[in-house]
Amino acid sequence: MDDIRSSSISRRELLAMIGRTTSAAVMYQAMSSLGYAAESDFQGPVSLEGAPKGTSVLILGAGLAGMTAALELRKAGYKVQVLEYRERAGGRSWSLRGGDTYTELGGFTQHCDFEKGLYINPGPWRIPYHHRGLLHYCKLLGVKLEAFVEMNANAYLHNSKAFGGKPQRFRHVMSDFNGYVSELLAKATDQNKLDQAVAKDERDILLEALRSWGALDDKYAYTPATASAMRGYDKDPGGGPGGAPTPSTPISRADILNSGLWHHLSFPLTYEYAQTLFQPVGGMDMIAQGFAREVASLIQFNAKVTEIAQSDSGVTVTYVDARHGGEARRAKADWCVCTVPLSILSQIRNNFSSTLQAAINAVPYAPAIKAGLQFKRRFWEEDDAIYGGISFTDLPIGQISYPSTDYQKPGKGVILGAYMFGVSAVEFTSLSPSERLQRVLEYGAQLHPQMSREFDNGISVAWHRVPWTLGCYGMWKEDTRQQYYKDLCAIDGHTVLAGEHCSYVNAWQEGAILSSLSAIERLHQRVVAGR
Amino acid sequence: MDDIRSSSISRRELLAMIGRTTSAAVMYQAMSSLGYAAESDFQGPVSLEGAPKGTSVLILGAGLAGMTAALELRKAGYKVQVLEYRERAGGRSWSLRGGDTYTELGGFTQHCDFEKGLYINPGPWRIPYHHRGLLHYCKLLGVKLEAFVEMNANAYLHNSKAFGGKPQRFRHVMSDFNGYVSELLAKATDQNKLDQAVAKDERDILLEALRSWGALDDKYAYTPATASAMRGYDKDPGGGPGGAPTPSTPISRADILNSGLWHHLSFPLTYEYAQTLFQPVGGMDMIAQGFAREVASLIQFNAKVTEIAQSDSGVTVTYVDARHGGEARRAKADWCVCTVPLSILSQIRNNFSSTLQAAINAVPYAPAIKAGLQFKRRFWEEDDAIYGGISFTDLPIGQISYPSTDYQKPGKGVILGAYMFGVSAVEFTSLSPSERLQRVLEYGAQLHPQMSREFDNGISVAWHRVPWTLGCYGMWKEDTRQQYYKDLCAIDGHTVLAGEHCSYVNAWQEGAILSSLSAIERLHQRVVAGR
Repeated sequence: MDDIRSSSISRRELLAMIGRTTSAAVMYQAMSSLGYAAESDFQGPVSLEGAPKGTSVLILGAGLAGMTAALELRKAGYKVQVLEYRERAGGRSWSLRGGDTYTELGGFTQHCDFEKGLYINPGPWRIPYHHRGLLHYCKLLGVKLEAFVEMNANAYLHNSKAFGGKPQRFRHVMSDFNGYVSELLAKATDQNKLDQAVAKDERDILLEALRSWGALDDKYAYTPATASAMRGYDKDPGGGPGGAPTPSTPISRADILNSGLWHHLSFPLTYEYAQTLFQPVGGMDMIAQGFAREVASLIQFNAKVTEIAQSDSGVTVTYVDARHGGEARRAKADWCVCTVPLSILSQIRNNFSSTLQAAINAVPYAPAIKAGLQFKRRFWEEDDAIYGGISFTDLPIGQISYPSTDYQKPGKGVILGAYMFGVSAVEFTSLSPSERLQRVLEYGAQLHPQMSREFDNGISVAWHRVPWTLGCYGMWKEDTRQQYYKDLCAIDGHTVLAGEHCSYVNAWQEGAILSSLSAIERLHQRVVAGR
Repeated sequence: MDDIRSSSISRRELLAMIGRTTSAAVMYQAMSSLGYAAESDFQGPVSLEGAPKGTSVLILGAGLAGMTAALELRKAGYKVQVLEYRERAGGRSWSLRGGDTYTELGGFTQHCDFEKGLYINPGPWRIPYHHRGLLHYCKLLGVKLEAFVEMNANAYLHNSKAFGGKPQRFRHVMSDFNGYVSELLAKATDQNKLDQAVAKDERDILLEALRSWGALDDKYAYTPATASAMRGYDKDPGGGPGGAPTPSTPISRADILNSGLWHHLSFPLTYEYAQTLFQPVGGMDMIAQGFAREVASLIQFNAKVTEIAQSDSGVTVTYVDARHGGEARRAKADWCVCTVPLSILSQIRNNFSSTLQAAINAVPYAPAIKAGLQFKRRFWEEDDAIYGGISFTDLPIGQISYPSTDYQKPGKGVILGAYMFGVSAVEFTSLSPSERLQRVLEYGAQLHPQMSREFDNGISVAWHRVPWTLGCYGMWKEDTRQQYYKDLCAIDGHTVLAGEHCSYVNAWQEGAILSSLSAIERLHQRVVAGR
């Protein structure tokens, strides 16, 4: 270890290099073999040493990408200024609470009437465990996290055209699907139909594995006797002389398959969504608040950028007051980190290279709507025994998500009553906010009849109508990614772009953070090299 | 609705009857169709009206079964007294914190040195969402709950004889197993080998379902290109020009099957363990504290029962001071609810019927050990990106569970370092507590090398050495259940037994509560009927 420490490549540089080119797992192994893991002081994700004193950077946007850049660049000794369109920091990382007012493009104004302590996260709403960048900043900034329940076996899967429109418990669909898949494969294997694919010595262990995992009986059948331990009972095990459970009967294989509800089963098992996930205690904007505590003094709020003009020596940005226009002001700096969403940036006058302009114009933004609904009581807990998690439906609302916090708290509660995308989302915004809520409730009542009676108030955010993003996130496709992505990320003159659109982690805060770290690291290398 | 309300069967009785004989889901549907669900005042799980004034009940044991009985019986107007062996309420529902001292049978004394705010739950440690009785009392008593993370895709599955003893990520084993099962079945189906089992019209949809769920490509193969979205990447998606992910390579099917690690996959999907689960914030004994706030005035602590004597008119219980023996005292009552674990009860002099005595003697108690380990830092979060959840191993420690709370909190943390059963557990107790910890750390280090360096202090609880239970829970088998269970639950003279052993929910607090509600309901019916 000693020789490593005294060598000319610093430990930090070594680790940063390993981290940049591999995975966290490989990094940890490297750190372990270097003897560093246990005593790691791996403080931050970038090392920006040697910045020439007085070098200025203008950051456009005080969302997470902008504030990450501000925090790290200032720490590295840069002179930092941030221009932000809104009156607050955080960008899409946003929470709505009682007392908040929100006016969307087109003029509809909504007032949020949630009770104190309740909120909805209309933008990002969960943080996967492998989003190490974001988790790093949460820890650094003292943002308290709680588990976000992604998979709830007792939530509903709903196909309005299957089972007479009656929602099915996730655990029933999951257990039965797994059971039938196991049964089909096990029986076929047992009947030697898989002999070409499965070697003799593998056969027995495969059968054992299928029986175990699929809850099959000793004839490899998925039946009530074995299934109930997975799917649940008609009568739960209880106490006293009458305590014996009554097995439940699996849904038929044909009904499971025809319902199409199986297509929801892999979602909570994907790398992106498998637990553990988190949410900040008290609302997603706790992250923005944490960042703002550190960098608010650098931010000019209510600044609407109208022009970005580069020269050989730096960047000049023209802006007006976002609330009432008026006199144009100018901010100048040696360098610029621009985190403005492309949907907006493509409308701001600039003299970027045509290559960069083409990339900026190549990425459409996703329409999406989220609706937060407050109810008089937590009926989903009291009546449906659903605590946290998500129900899925083919109805336009798409999803209903139950709060992963304040379980069993008396009084009111807020759920996510709709999460809509694409065409449905666009069509929905032709309705007034109150019409939207009415429609959302009608749909939701097909899963939860109590909704109508227990509804208190609600609010909807249509991202394609949010004035400062005009869309939820950048939608890359394979061909546009190939053609434009690297151009979008590359430093152009004195400007580098950052934001979730400059990442492969689109629509996640992690994308914003990682893109920003990449942008400022490359910018810093350029600065230090005197270019 | 009006005619129902005015009929001679009360609404409460009707609902209680439905609830007793069916499931919560059916109950809710019944309530919905009766129009009650939304406005339900379904307050409590029992209705004990009409108790003759002055009727006395002596309750043995102030665990959850005893305190549930005390709470409900007192509310119903009974004169209640509780005798408890320990100096505190809660029984097996127990948490150990810094400053606690615990002496096991055989004399080993351990001092818990956990930091303030940290704890281990050596007994029950999680609450499934469908344990409605316990959740009811948590709500009633104001016990705050947080999510217990049962399934963590990034936790480890470990077979010391597979993969060179290197632990595997749950998500790798799960995704690959699911992928290979899907692939085998899909290819065989596609090659018409399942034509006897799968009808023509079912075939296409089955293939579509398998491709979706198993992450197969368009040739029904499970390959790196499709697998990574499930199992994770060698290099995660990131930001900037270098942000493209690198796919990972699945473990071979032979290795997955031969490792036997698949046998852990169904566990977090079983009805018993599928999410959502909870734990009380601050320790499991918050439940006992909640109950104690209500009924402590009824409890005589440090009372060791030495004899239970029934007559035609009531019950007389003899007891001495549990700490130093001494003068025998007597408590008398009309009726007795006895919640003493059978392992202890079988050693207490009594004049129960020979039928009941046979039942009491028929149920052995499970040996088990749990070890709580405090570490200097939350290495499992910082280094392994494991937040909450459980790793499983074939090593004697069995499981390692990470705290589902205080994520990313700086400073020390406590994990469950071992959860052992059966023969291993018994053998382990021949070691001194410090030897046990040393052994647990040696084993744990095979999954987490950092354990050795980061270990701070620990404590172990061997349930078969706990003086007031002599075992973790009652172990029923199919034949003993058939032969003795109803006898154990039946009222015997003036005494009825309760406790998790008098339920089909053994080893869970829910079993204690449901058994107690059943016992007092039946006792009450007997009292009201004048028998």
